[in-house]
Amino acid sequence: MIKKALITGGAGFIGSHLAQQLLDEGYEVTALDNLFTGTKVNIYGLLENPRFTFMLHDVTQPFWGQFDEIYNLACPASPIHYQRNPVETIRTSFMGVMNVLELALKTKARVLHASTSEIYGDPAVHPQPETYWGNVNTIGIRSCYDEGKRAAETLCADYFREHGVDIRMVRIFNTYGPHMHPQDGRVISNFIMQALHDQDITLYGDGSQTRSFQYIDDLIRAFRAYMKLEPDVIRKFIHEHNLPVPVINTGNPGEYTIKQLAEETLRQIPESKSKIIYEPLPKDDPKRRKPDITLAKSLLRWSPSVALPDGLAKTIAYFRGV
Amino acid sequence: MIKKALITGGAGFIGSHLAQQLLDEGYEVTALDNLFTGTKVNIYGLLENPRFTFMLHDVTQPFWGQFDEIYNLACPASPIHYQRNPVETIRTSFMGVMNVLELALKTKARVLHASTSEIYGDPAVHPQPETYWGNVNTIGIRSCYDEGKRAAETLCADYFREHGVDIRMVRIFNTYGPHMHPQDGRVISNFIMQALHDQDITLYGDGSQTRSFQYIDDLIRAFRAYMKLEPDVIRKFIHEHNLPVPVINTGNPGEYTIKQLAEETLRQIPESKSKIIYEPLPKDDPKRRKPDITLAKSLLRWSPSVALPDGLAKTIAYFRGV
Repeated sequence: MIKKALITGGAGFIGSHLAQQLLDEGYEVTALDNLFTGTKVNIYGLLENPRFTFMLHDVTQPFWGQFDEIYNLACPASPIHYQRNPVETIRTSFMGVMNVLELALKTKARVLHASTSEIYGDPAVHPQPETYWGNVNTIGIRSCYDEGKRAAETLCADYFREHGVDIRMVRIFNTYGPHMHPQDGRVISNFIMQALHDQDITLYGDGSQTRSFQYIDDLIRAFRAYMKLEPDVIRKFIHEHNLPVPVINTGNPGEYTIKQLAEETLRQIPESKSKIIYEPLPKDDPKRRKPDITLAKSLLRWSPSVALPDGLAKTIAYFRGV
Repeated sequence: MIKKALITGGAGFIGSHLAQQLLDEGYEVTALDNLFTGTKVNIYGLLENPRFTFMLHDVTQPFWGQFDEIYNLACPASPIHYQRNPVETIRTSFMGVMNVLELALKTKARVLHASTSEIYGDPAVHPQPETYWGNVNTIGIRSCYDEGKRAAETLCADYFREHGVDIRMVRIFNTYGPHMHPQDGRVISNFIMQALHDQDITLYGDGSQTRSFQYIDDLIRAFRAYMKLEPDVIRKFIHEHNLPVPVINTGNPGEYTIKQLAEETLRQIPESKSKIIYEPLPKDDPKRRKPDITLAKSLLRWSPSVALPDGLAKTIAYFRGV
């Protein structure tokens, strides 16, 4: 039997890589996307595969289909996009996961829900383990995303606890690679685009804030390892680790300052005439984030393997062609 | 012109008192309620007033009407109720405020949104000012309420910022009085019911955790003072106090330990044969909460005036008649 997967946000950065991977493994893949931040360009190469279906649909509206696995990736995830329409952002996060969970409940599909390190907010604990509750403003300009994703986790937890939905949550830390939106305002795409176009590279604050950067291939490997586990393995694991529901961090704990990233980007684009400049920190900008990936290592027998200079090289190659 | 008010959750504990107050002030009042935790008993006395309308409706479904003021109070608020159906609880909080905000946007109604001290979770700061971000678990058994109310605040903030909806948020700390649900599992109703029925009074932990208890009449006065302010007064105030949106705590900062409350209850019910017993603390139970009401005092020229022994006497008189 050919396995069937649904990816909400399937034309986005992460979704399009996952679609490719699942097709490579022999799945039939349906990519649901409203193309707000996702783009068909990301899936042009998949459309000729008869096992691939593109479904233009908004995840906040109910949808139906029989799938073995559902990957819920739909939500604008970069401040530039999600602040354009904050109400739609939090609605997408909340109603989207609700529709996914209802579908999973009725069709017994297995679900991977993409949560985010943003639920930790501006963390008081470093690195962040899954048991950390986070430090998030409810009424700030980032709240539409942060609180939307927090409420989505709560819904997942309650469908798991109350209805036995086979849900697996992943809190994704900074991830980068080909298919990132060139204008999404995130630091890696910003720096590469600025360097390629000889524009100055903007650091906020003094550039000493650190980030962890996970290459997309590492994340997709984690998704697949997680979804291949049987439910009883997962239940045993969360019981042993005193977690109420299945939730793990994925990310690359290697820390780079934003300034180091800028310098490495310029090193790899030697023809660039860009200079590094400094601007004030935006409101509510999280200062420091680094995943504790102890649980993912243990549960998935996984760890990130792509070093930043290597991942950056592939990403720069992609952006040169955009 | 007779002013028109809508109260969602209008047959609940707080809603029914507010309805009475607004009728006393000459308003036409519509009380919308699905009667899940609210009860018609609370509004029997209002039904004969021609300015009062009861509307049996669930706030998660869209509704329509032209009102000058909307008070959004609909949501199960006690753990016993909200944990009975966690998914419905978070849906009520989220979809309910969404429907209220859409209605307010289209009809230019003024909105008071009832938030809660629960958004502070298990606070690391004491007492809690409005600028404190809170300490809340996204995946625990209380999360359906806490995260639902947090996401509701975010929606209010975004409708205020993006669409200019005239929204006023109140974070309500522990409130008690007549019309509390006798079986809602909250500490005051529990203790009174236990004492009246000669059952032992249960303290969780050692009973040294403190709570602030606000009498219902004080809360209703705060609501009315808040809603009488003109929008420009509020905008000026939040600007001066560096708040992104209008949000104030209301509560009574007087601290009592749970044990003191038990003892005062027994003192006022001298015929009771109840004894005080001890049980372990439930999961995620917040340990300490006390409102910082500096902003409410300044903006509303309000402060709570009912002392616990007096409010308790009125509440006990009510429960004797239930």
